[in-house]
Amino acid sequence: MAINFDLVGKQTDPITHDYTWKDAVVYALGVGAKIDEIDFLFEHNGPKVLPTFAVVPSFKTLVDIVSRLGASPGSILHGEQTVIQHRPIPPSGSFVTSATVKSIYDKGKGALVVVEANTTDETGEAMFDNVFSLFVRGEGNFGGERGPEALSADPPEGVDPDFEHTETTSPEQAALYRLSGDLNPLHMSPSFAKGVGFDKPILHGLCTYGHAGRAVIAHACGGDPGRFKSFAARFTGIVFPGDTLTTRGWQIEPGRYVIRTIKNDDKTVLSNSIAEVTT
Amino acid sequence: MAINFDLVGKQTDPITHDYTWKDAVVYALGVGAKIDEIDFLFEHNGPKVLPTFAVVPSFKTLVDIVSRLGASPGSILHGEQTVIQHRPIPPSGSFVTSATVKSIYDKGKGALVVVEANTTDETGEAMFDNVFSLFVRGEGNFGGERGPEALSADPPEGVDPDFEHTETTSPEQAALYRLSGDLNPLHMSPSFAKGVGFDKPILHGLCTYGHAGRAVIAHACGGDPGRFKSFAARFTGIVFPGDTLTTRGWQIEPGRYVIRTIKNDDKTVLSNSIAEVTT
Repeated sequence: MAINFDLVGKQTDPITHDYTWKDAVVYALGVGAKIDEIDFLFEHNGPKVLPTFAVVPSFKTLVDIVSRLGASPGSILHGEQTVIQHRPIPPSGSFVTSATVKSIYDKGKGALVVVEANTTDETGEAMFDNVFSLFVRGEGNFGGERGPEALSADPPEGVDPDFEHTETTSPEQAALYRLSGDLNPLHMSPSFAKGVGFDKPILHGLCTYGHAGRAVIAHACGGDPGRFKSFAARFTGIVFPGDTLTTRGWQIEPGRYVIRTIKNDDKTVLSNSIAEVTT
Repeated sequence: MAINFDLVGKQTDPITHDYTWKDAVVYALGVGAKIDEIDFLFEHNGPKVLPTFAVVPSFKTLVDIVSRLGASPGSILHGEQTVIQHRPIPPSGSFVTSATVKSIYDKGKGALVVVEANTTDETGEAMFDNVFSLFVRGEGNFGGERGPEALSADPPEGVDPDFEHTETTSPEQAALYRLSGDLNPLHMSPSFAKGVGFDKPILHGLCTYGHAGRAVIAHACGGDPGRFKSFAARFTGIVFPGDTLTTRGWQIEPGRYVIRTIKNDDKTVLSNSIAEVTT
């Protein structure tokens, strides 16, 4: 396949996404929310909505763009993800999202497609923005710009993290997470996964991102999603459903945390990640 | 509160329930389906639909009846449940259900309300029937009939079961199961649960029932839901999310199994239960 470079700079038509508290809860469980996070699971308590749920109402615009990009689902990996929250997400709502392909970089082994999606509520008030960076394997070396190294953030050397959060994902984590919208068979079908070079189906990058986001909410926001401002993360390793994720956070200045997530006490899967919160 | 006995014999208005494959998957995960049951989790494989999903499209009729029954949600426990499947349930559909209160028995400590719900597809073809028996605590001793002992089925003495299936429910099992329709706060709210006499929120009886039904499909139907004919079960113990369930089946005649489920290697939670399958 060949990437459709004409997409760069073009904005999608606005896409409306309606959701209910059940969608927010399916998402929360999909990113591993535990029963002691009941405010995110029980409608009588709101429910509160995880800020990283922002990826859900905007996902259709991404699908729209990917379908016109000319890349096969098995070739696409998540490279980086940023969510910027302007206001807390209500338990239900109707959101409108427009997205733009900001750039397509040539990373050699693949193309990096950067999509920015802006979401408002029905009155036009800004809710949140997403930046999805997709790495399309095998579509590099087209003579394009390499682009900036978008994120660079290492934990301070020799300093213990301000928080550490470990939990084991379920073997059914991808089956549950995908109900929030990303139905790529790479995350379910053993034969499809093998066909594109993986031993078995892999977890969605955005599911790992959601796990890390929950750790930020729990430990840097005191459980209050209203204190979340942004979370930018870089995906640097493959996670399989059933893996154990440990997310660590170092507060490098007030309200600004370097985040790193490792799997199975070994490989880094989120690096160069920054969360910003209200102190 | 006092039970509204006038309901006996009256049929509800037909209620239409539309569902998609995602609802079938949410249900399957809600009753503990594992990734190796991928046919029930992945739309490219159907998905196949668990026969005990039959409780979902008919649940609104039960809610309708309970709302007119005059019983508080905290007083209602599931007593018995039967699903009779006439045809395999498709991955999506629109079903029409009418329900009737067949009888209200006086069990002393409570009233046993027996509701039969009949479900057809849009063309009027019979899909499945449910019999929901609800035990309403504190509403007995009204001078009514005690009613028949509906189910009596013990495993043959000293005989090993034909199958045994053990799995541990998740602490979030009720949070996930309730997304299929039964939003009784008894299954989520610690304060509500305490207020009606439980140490903590309890698992839905129908969630335990679904776990046992999965064991029947896996071990007595070779994974084929089309071979399921009926499953009648009696709830005899409280299950908490996180408990381990062991379901055993004894084939007492061809295609007829006595089923028993115990929790934590100790207490019986489903007894006097019979599953019928096509051999």
